[in-house]
Amino acid sequence: MLKATIDADILKESIDAISALVTECRLHTDENGISTRAVDTANVAMISLLLKKEAFSSFAATRSELGIDIAKMKNIFGMMAKNDMITLELTDDIHKLQVSFQGYKYSITLLDENTIRKDPNPPTIELPGKVAIPGAELNSAIKAAAVVSDKIALGIDAAKQIFFMAAEGDTDHIRREFGKDEVSFINGVEAKSLFSLDYMKDMGKVMSRAEEVEIHLGIDHPAKFSFNIAGGNGHVEYLLAPRIEAD
Amino acid sequence: MLKATIDADILKESIDAISALVTECRLHTDENGISTRAVDTANVAMISLLLKKEAFSSFAATRSELGIDIAKMKNIFGMMAKNDMITLELTDDIHKLQVSFQGYKYSITLLDENTIRKDPNPPTIELPGKVAIPGAELNSAIKAAAVVSDKIALGIDAAKQIFFMAAEGDTDHIRREFGKDEVSFINGVEAKSLFSLDYMKDMGKVMSRAEEVEIHLGIDHPAKFSFNIAGGNGHVEYLLAPRIEAD
Amino acid sequence: MLKATIDADILKESIDAISALVTECRLHTDENGISTRAVDTANVAMISLLLKKEAFSSFAATRSELGIDIAKMKNIFGMMAKNDMITLELTDDIHKLQVSFQGYKYSITLLDENTIRKDPNPPTIELPGKVAIPGAELNSAIKAAAVVSDKIALGIDAAKQIFFMAAEGDTDHIRREFGKDEVSFINGVEAKSLFSLDYMKDMGKVMSRAEEVEIHLGIDHPAKFSFNIAGGNGHVEYLLAPRIEAD
Repeated sequence: MLKATIDADILKESIDAISALVTECRLHTDENGISTRAVDTANVAMISLLLKKEAFSSFAATRSELGIDIAKMKNIFGMMAKNDMITLELTDDIHKLQVSFQGYKYSITLLDENTIRKDPNPPTIELPGKVAIPGAELNSAIKAAAVVSDKIALGIDAAKQIFFMAAEGDTDHIRREFGKDEVSFINGVEAKSLFSLDYMKDMGKVMSRAEEVEIHLGIDHPAKFSFNIAGGNGHVEYLLAPRIEAD
Repeated sequence: MLKATIDADILKESIDAISALVTECRLHTDENGISTRAVDTANVAMISLLLKKEAFSSFAATRSELGIDIAKMKNIFGMMAKNDMITLELTDDIHKLQVSFQGYKYSITLLDENTIRKDPNPPTIELPGKVAIPGAELNSAIKAAAVVSDKIALGIDAAKQIFFMAAEGDTDHIRREFGKDEVSFINGVEAKSLFSLDYMKDMGKVMSRAEEVEIHLGIDHPAKFSFNIAGGNGHVEYLLAPRIEAD
Repeated sequence: MLKATIDADILKESIDAISALVTECRLHTDENGISTRAVDTANVAMISLLLKKEAFSSFAATRSELGIDIAKMKNIFGMMAKNDMITLELTDDIHKLQVSFQGYKYSITLLDENTIRKDPNPPTIELPGKVAIPGAELNSAIKAAAVVSDKIALGIDAAKQIFFMAAEGDTDHIRREFGKDEVSFINGVEAKSLFSLDYMKDMGKVMSRAEEVEIHLGIDHPAKFSFNIAGGNGHVEYLLAPRIEAD
């Protein structure tokens, strides 16, 4: 059972965060809220999203699992205005989600959740380097790097206490350094890994809305990007596998 | 003979209304204004447009017929700003329309009106169900329906006094109901017909500007959409044939 | 040697002016500023651009020549905001240009200037007809002409003291006349030449920003378009070869 009402903007924000990586997912509901965890088809990136019941203006749910076509949801909610209130309702017919807003009633057939990849287990990895940076700054650096390359290095220079993002193209390179005045060093230990800009660009667009993104880094290890959504009543974590440096 | 001056915005509004259905038309002029009636190439939809002489800031015309390339007109008038005044002039050479505005002088060769389909006769059909709805609401419901299907049902539930628009997709459906507080029931008799969203979307864009659209409906019959343009000094009627329900 | 700081908007304006005609050029630096002169691949149009040292907020340079990939520059500077300050630096390694702004450091490999066409010599031609017109008006007339044709005539009617721009399509034509109240006649002698709208459209976009463009014309001769950039601290000249009238 699910019956919940939420601001269209918060719902869109959540769907955008998921759709940066996957086109369908298993949504879990229980009395505390909704959550999902999914891995992209190439097994390179994982998203974990949690939307607490406090993110909703009203929320009642029992434990269940919904197969969601994220791409379709994006289409439907794209036409809603900010501040529209949306009611989601899962009735007896477990395969139909009723969506209502402003006189409209959508009935959406859910995906059979058995056709969707099982929830991935979160890997246990140590990522000692930690910084926090405004999402808009992170996204700007990603876009700048994309002009010269398809890979970006993220790292911490422990000696200089500098967080850097750098990209090497065939002929050009770009480097953006952030000192203590621009980022918070939660744990400024040496770190450096290389990532695909294909993924970073999609994730960057979503993260650009976040006031602060916590980045967890190792040496040639995955990166974890962790940030709040829904005014603090929701949370997203992206985990991205590193690319191996060719040279 | 034709010599008329009109606000660019009104002229654009009229051309947009016509171009939703056809790329060329016969324009009739007489001392009272200009008018056209045209059917789309698939014989599914008809437009009747009338622009009274009061819609013009100055108007003088005798009875004549002009072959107009609507697509070209749209191109030319697309570059004009709101509140530009446009003068249209048909001189001795009946095949050249002179268009002047802001120091520009266009000379446009008219189409040979014999190459354009004859004016259709307006069919005599009874459409008893009548409601009036804001154009913007109508267009929103059309766009919402297009997310799930390529057909839309329009109807009146006489018992409940509800006007509804509904679309059935393969897996999803959407329904928008309007009660007495949202639409005027001019004649709330039972009605329901199915229409192609291809046509409805193009017509919806034009109708979204209208304060009020009068919809005339029957049971598995065409629909008539009737609304004012040019601040009440012009009028458009769309007549759309129904689609047959497959099931 | 080059070390210069400049407002992003001025740099973009200069790069846009060059990229309307060529994708790469030789940039000359000396103690007074930077300049370039380049011809498009079809030898139809030439640009001369000068940016005085006063256009920079700081400027120091010796005489040298840089091979610039204009298309790449456009890409890089597209992401900058107005009022960002950009520092350009050419160090010992003559083939690397360092670009820094807002914490970013770009290192751009210059083109080998020997692979770029030699600077063209400015042709010595007499263009007696001269008018000055707001860039925005010039661009509007170019866009209007492009609706009916791919060529535009520019000319001066000496008797009527009118500057005109006209385009003849297969069936339609357009003409825009400017009298003494709209343009300055610096030298209102008879002139008329025909030009490719392909070139005029690209140049028009750049010129639309100029408060005033001086146009120099002859009879079936090239046209020269001359205007200031960088608030008067820079100057651009376009020279465009005429098209031969087919009929």
